[in-house]
Amino acid sequence: MKFFENGDGLTEARGFFCSGIHCDVRGNKDGKLDLGLIYSKKPCGVAGVFTTNDVKAAPVLYCQSLLEDSNARFHALIVNSGNANACTGKMGLADTIKTAKEVARHLNIHSKEVLVCSTGRIGAPLPMSRITAGVKDATDDVINEFDGALAFQQAILTSDTCTKSCSAKIDTSMGEITVGGVVKGAGMIEPNMATMLAFLTTDASAENSYLQSILKKAVDCSFNRITIDGDMSTNDSVILLANGNSGVDLIKEKKSVQAAFVEAVHSVCANLAKKCVSDGEKVTKFIKLLVKGAPNDGAAEKVARCIGNSLLVKSSWYGEDPNWGRIIDSAGYAKIGLEFETVDLLYDEVCVLKNGEPVLANKGTWKEIVSKKEFSITLDLKLSVGSFEIWTNDLSEEYVNFNKSE
Amino acid sequence: MKFFENGDGLTEARGFFCSGIHCDVRGNKDGKLDLGLIYSKKPCGVAGVFTTNDVKAAPVLYCQSLLEDSNARFHALIVNSGNANACTGKMGLADTIKTAKEVARHLNIHSKEVLVCSTGRIGAPLPMSRITAGVKDATDDVINEFDGALAFQQAILTSDTCTKSCSAKIDTSMGEITVGGVVKGAGMIEPNMATMLAFLTTDASAENSYLQSILKKAVDCSFNRITIDGDMSTNDSVILLANGNSGVDLIKEKKSVQAAFVEAVHSVCANLAKKCVSDGEKVTKFIKLLVKGAPNDGAAEKVARCIGNSLLVKSSWYGEDPNWGRIIDSAGYAKIGLEFETVDLLYDEVCVLKNGEPVLANKGTWKEIVSKKEFSITLDLKLSVGSFEIWTNDLSEEYVNFNKSE
Repeated sequence: MKFFENGDGLTEARGFFCSGIHCDVRGNKDGKLDLGLIYSKKPCGVAGVFTTNDVKAAPVLYCQSLLEDSNARFHALIVNSGNANACTGKMGLADTIKTAKEVARHLNIHSKEVLVCSTGRIGAPLPMSRITAGVKDATDDVINEFDGALAFQQAILTSDTCTKSCSAKIDTSMGEITVGGVVKGAGMIEPNMATMLAFLTTDASAENSYLQSILKKAVDCSFNRITIDGDMSTNDSVILLANGNSGVDLIKEKKSVQAAFVEAVHSVCANLAKKCVSDGEKVTKFIKLLVKGAPNDGAAEKVARCIGNSLLVKSSWYGEDPNWGRIIDSAGYAKIGLEFETVDLLYDEVCVLKNGEPVLANKGTWKEIVSKKEFSITLDLKLSVGSFEIWTNDLSEEYVNFNKSE
Repeated sequence: MKFFENGDGLTEARGFFCSGIHCDVRGNKDGKLDLGLIYSKKPCGVAGVFTTNDVKAAPVLYCQSLLEDSNARFHALIVNSGNANACTGKMGLADTIKTAKEVARHLNIHSKEVLVCSTGRIGAPLPMSRITAGVKDATDDVINEFDGALAFQQAILTSDTCTKSCSAKIDTSMGEITVGGVVKGAGMIEPNMATMLAFLTTDASAENSYLQSILKKAVDCSFNRITIDGDMSTNDSVILLANGNSGVDLIKEKKSVQAAFVEAVHSVCANLAKKCVSDGEKVTKFIKLLVKGAPNDGAAEKVARCIGNSLLVKSSWYGEDPNWGRIIDSAGYAKIGLEFETVDLLYDEVCVLKNGEPVLANKGTWKEIVSKKEFSITLDLKLSVGSFEIWTNDLSEEYVNFNKSE
């Protein structure tokens, strides 16, 4: 597998075209690109993982209903930023369907072959006249095969500070296949993906159920392990489109090719998830947090999330304070039967606690490690073999300032 | 029942003496009072509710073991601020016992008649020589019956900005009885009390088991309903001492007096809990949040805690942004089966959502309400009859700045 950081992402897979245009979803005429389109002439198999929030945005409900048909095929995916179309009732759902119909009309396909996503502020109706006008521009661009990969990446952003993409390529006896991906993230990341939209493309083909099982597992090991502020959105979606343009049908391939494809999807998801955490709202640090030696994986996850979501812990990371007391305290309120006297704690490879005793000889290096932009923390409970890793970040004053109003 | 805001608190109940002195627990010679003592010549019945964190500080373990004896009686309670004596291993427990012994020696009582509490930084050993010297000063003051009520209130504070006390008095045929209380709070309040020490005194008497059942219920309806930052400490304790100085034995009293006593304990706990939230670290607003119409009380609590702990919701309150979308979104990730189309949401008495539809006619007043220093939010899910109320606050940039190091 060859892996490529950044770049075009989605259009690295053959047969996919992207566009991104400004149609003024926010109504402030700031010129920001806010409507993106993915298009494939060949129909695509699909897999999707969506928010588990009780309150799901209209486009999420719409996509989920389309994906219920295991033979569903798609030609297009349209996404707007600036408005989540969430908590918008029947009108919201009608607006999603209308958007799909507009895309279908211009591309001469069926509206059920169009997926729709939205991200942005909750509770306001979509500005449909501007969206409708924008759909014409966005479809024109893909019909004319303009190179809109980067424009698409920009069009889906909200409070992100940069575009986020990557791709992976695998050699097979039938030629090369590619998995490309892009993501938008920023605030509200946890648990289970939250205000995050990720899109993957591949020029391999496979049945939807096969793609779904691969994507689900990859999401569990990536997007579902990141936490920025403990919030979870109404709109988060990860969608994989497979158009088969390479001629490679995964089902007919050798196990080694299938395994390489799984690895490629995992690598793309992991890379995009890490980019999300690093580009979290007003974040200054990336922390990989591993809890091991727990009674089981579920208990390890509980402990990891308690630490990773603790405001006091996150504030201390921001302040570059190697405060192991706050880490142990937050681990303790997961209430999984932690025994402080047996706990080991490491910053990177440096021992901070050994059997609950501070290793004071290392004290000088603790501060050095938490002063880095990226470091790891390992908490070994030494109770059993359960483990869980999450990726998290610090909490800055700027986060609060940024989120005090929209 | 007569209720008194602020004032002496603990010494309002007859026969209790308090002192508060500076013994330089923090080692920075700032002069801050940091060692407090409660003393009663008559032995006291006791009730106690303690942190449920897996990691419990030495004094918590010590008090819990003493309270296992249902006939235990106490003359004194000593508390230091500036050092939590948590994560300090066997030496920590030995230091707690030594502190109790010192108090007992000066007061000529048994060390098992002395309760010990600590609050402050985790993981550092207690400065025992300074504590020992301080115990002499603190015991001298109560022996000489100095008026140290306010000094005690100051001695237990950490990042609190003010002392917090109240008392309630009840008339009985045997004369008046009093319940007094003080609290220290600030950060790390939720769930289940967290870095919070509350002490109550009464000059009534009763068996420990009777007092325990009353205190437990009062704590569940007060301290366990407050949330500041979702963190929970190793040290939180609520302790009630009953010395019987009034001559009133609750067990022998009429039901009406018993009910009035229960009400007094509840009122004191509720008042202290609210003071804690309002004095949370760098807090600018107090919000009473009621979730009703949930499938059951547990589900209502889940929803209330998701909203009350959401950084995005708390940041928007700080920014005085009446952002109902973030409230609904955070309610949704409690995943209790919320249906947005049936939800009513009120700021104070003003309807914001009716059956999931924004009541735009009221929009002008939304902002007015969330701009107040104190307001209420009611979320009616209209699914069934479960309800839960919590008291919470906003999140300010200053909170992060304050907590980025200790």
